[in-house]
Amino acid sequence: MSQSIITSTIFDNVRIVLCQTSHPGNIGSTARAMKTMGFKHLYLVQPDKFPNAQATAMAAGADDVLDNAIVTQTLSEALVGCAFAIGMSARKRYLSHETVNAREAAVQANQYAASQPVAFVFGTEMSGLTNAELDCCQLLTMIPANPEYSSLNLAMAVQLMCYELRMTTADAKLDLPAGEVLATNDELERFYAHLEETLLKIGYLNPNAPKKLFERMRRLYSRARLEKEEVNLLRGVLTLTQEPRKHSKY
Amino acid sequence: MSQSIITSTIFDNVRIVLCQTSHPGNIGSTARAMKTMGFKHLYLVQPDKFPNAQATAMAAGADDVLDNAIVTQTLSEALVGCAFAIGMSARKRYLSHETVNAREAAVQANQYAASQPVAFVFGTEMSGLTNAELDCCQLLTMIPANPEYSSLNLAMAVQLMCYELRMTTADAKLDLPAGEVLATNDELERFYAHLEETLLKIGYLNPNAPKKLFERMRRLYSRARLEKEEVNLLRGVLTLTQEPRKHSKY
Repeated sequence: MSQSIITSTIFDNVRIVLCQTSHPGNIGSTARAMKTMGFKHLYLVQPDKFPNAQATAMAAGADDVLDNAIVTQTLSEALVGCAFAIGMSARKRYLSHETVNAREAAVQANQYAASQPVAFVFGTEMSGLTNAELDCCQLLTMIPANPEYSSLNLAMAVQLMCYELRMTTADAKLDLPAGEVLATNDELERFYAHLEETLLKIGYLNPNAPKKLFERMRRLYSRARLEKEEVNLLRGVLTLTQEPRKHSKY
Repeated sequence: MSQSIITSTIFDNVRIVLCQTSHPGNIGSTARAMKTMGFKHLYLVQPDKFPNAQATAMAAGADDVLDNAIVTQTLSEALVGCAFAIGMSARKRYLSHETVNAREAAVQANQYAASQPVAFVFGTEMSGLTNAELDCCQLLTMIPANPEYSSLNLAMAVQLMCYELRMTTADAKLDLPAGEVLATNDELERFYAHLEETLLKIGYLNPNAPKKLFERMRRLYSRARLEKEEVNLLRGVLTLTQEPRKHSKY
């Protein structure tokens, strides 16, 4: 229970801040990317065009994130109340700031976001963050990318960062329905005995050294992690295999 | 050295397979997403429109990936030679297949992709993979997402999957330029002695119990991991602080 409370706080406490975004479509895609990962607080510092029909079109159902976006004139305004601001960098040039990869940044942000607002700050599509914007950040983060073609789309970078943040929470675990019931050990052993007997009978195994080839058969079926129902199916095949050959029942 | 050889094999051995994609823009964004993470082998099973100007526009410099894309009529053709095929699923409905999250799928794919081709298979934008397509896959994978809004764009899903694959390689480590030179332990101790002396002189520390407050000061500077140059700067401040008050030199 306490884990799910912490998790929801993180989703409440993370801000995505876009600085001087040129293309309104990117703002819409960002809103969608955030919402798919459970985040909702979008800040726009001097966006070129906003609100905008293209942003709404790209948001594709995440228009609540757009509607609640906060537009500011400066980055400092967008960071009011934030305890920790992390700048996204596409280039390895900022000796001035500690730089970590996106996974490590998510882990660090998670520590603070459990109790205080934390911001991820993204620069313009063309040139990233300015030095003045960088000075508002305590940490820089980079997404590992192809050094020969590292031009990640802005919303893609937001998507990856929000994904890494989600992966630090309990929600990283898939909530899958229970699978089929596996066969028990004794059911498996009875199947293996049945199989060995059958393979001897049809002349597949050497009666003088039956174990040699049979070990590989066991290994194969062991790796498949057989379900109860599958053991029944296979034993049905074995039973028919051992019977004197006759016309098919079909 | 051997690690970089293995790494490059993975980038050579991963195929991204898109089945019956409706929007050519998504094919272009997929090419861009792949290339940013270092992947190049794109397979298109019955794409609705391809080649297409919108695909090229969205590829934004990754047109080499588009130019080399292989178009097939069936998924089986796209999987020829593949040792392991992983289907992307947006829904938790396939009891029939083992399902893991994207991070785990990347780790499993990495094992085989070092020596044999591996495919990630993506269904249509609207309805995902068909049952027949699923039957061509050995494993399913899901990207953990907001259960109330899990509609990841197709290219975003490719981006996340390729990112997770890249994160399994040595290229996940940022190749940062060497940082500034840190101060050595003895330099730090001389700084702390200088600081303590100064704080006593200005009456900040209680001479009868100087350690109490001073421990917190040490903790603060210790956390900052001071560089050699910064220790010099701070000691300059301390020296001036201890001097009899006079006019500023500026």
